[in-house]
Amino acid sequence: MKELETINELIESLRKLPGVGTKSAERMAYQILNMREEYIDEFIQSMNDVKSRIEICPICGSYMEDGKCPFCDEENRDKDVIVVVSSFQDALAFEKLKSYYGQYHILNGYISPSKGIGIKDINIPSLIERIKNGSFKEIILATDPTLEGETTALYISKVLEDYDVKITRLAYGLPMGAQLEYADELTLTRALEGRKVLGKEK
Amino acid sequence: MKELETINELIESLRKLPGVGTKSAERMAYQILNMREEYIDEFIQSMNDVKSRIEICPICGSYMEDGKCPFCDEENRDKDVIVVVSSFQDALAFEKLKSYYGQYHILNGYISPSKGIGIKDINIPSLIERIKNGSFKEIILATDPTLEGETTALYISKVLEDYDVKITRLAYGLPMGAQLEYADELTLTRALEGRKVLGKEK
Repeated sequence: MKELETINELIESLRKLPGVGTKSAERMAYQILNMREEYIDEFIQSMNDVKSRIEICPICGSYMEDGKCPFCDEENRDKDVIVVVSSFQDALAFEKLKSYYGQYHILNGYISPSKGIGIKDINIPSLIERIKNGSFKEIILATDPTLEGETTALYISKVLEDYDVKITRLAYGLPMGAQLEYADELTLTRALEGRKVLGKEK
Repeated sequence: MKELETINELIESLRKLPGVGTKSAERMAYQILNMREEYIDEFIQSMNDVKSRIEICPICGSYMEDGKCPFCDEENRDKDVIVVVSSFQDALAFEKLKSYYGQYHILNGYISPSKGIGIKDINIPSLIERIKNGSFKEIILATDPTLEGETTALYISKVLEDYDVKITRLAYGLPMGAQLEYADELTLTRALEGRKVLGKEK
């Protein structure tokens, strides 16, 4: 039979999504074909909207919609503390806590020599600029506890050490609900190193 | 923070795909955002193409591209045998065998009273019409060995019993490579019922 190239192209597009293999992409494509009319229109509309209405905030690196940054353009936020994260999703994780109301800086990646990602490929220059010109009291480095995350945090703390701003990072240790016997050695080592005094300091 | 509605809408669209939960839809949406320019254009293009170039073949119920059915419009195919399947994907499974070169009829579903799907909701009337006006020698019912698939096959064999055409269905039994001890009872029962004589019939 003659292959249907439009369907194959749709499968190809879907296969580029994360976690989607050939089989799932095929299933999705045929599902889309079955839903045809309204669904395809809605899908195309949402893709077009994203394309035309979403930009990157030049200050913090977040996605912004219709020229408004969900963080920088929100008036009531604390102006003197800033959380540095790798991605917009990481910032959303903080927003879900509903206990942090400061600023964000979204790096959009980590320094990774092995992947050829250097300081200027992620939003580190704009962070330095912000600290230099701003009046922040604290920078909370909320990078992932991975090699790349740690390297990036270390680099940022180095380049900012001469500025009059407190630099902190998130605590490492056992996640809540964890079972000690199953904790990996590195986590347990960090938990031990970061141990806290209970009761009075003696 | 103010929610970014365009991103939420994209997540919503993606969540309607089969096997995609909220978390995966979010991951996909942010991936799409990161790929932005070319990828989004390509995706929109493939959706638009599907929308404008794919139709349902009025004869066999297959998808057809630019007005050409991959099955009905292929000249060299056998004209006297027809495989009846539930979906285009099922027809593709037969095509992969490269041993069947006949016609197809795609039902686009199964009869299912519990889901309110009756005879006229799937392509049964067009199948009857085709058999009535055609000169088929054999109809191979290749429905799934499920309750709905069996019901549909049974119904079709009933309504077509007065036409001068041989009606067959696929063999049921142990799948190749299966281990007998793990076969379910129904499969084993069907395998026993459908047993074949080896060597000379005695």
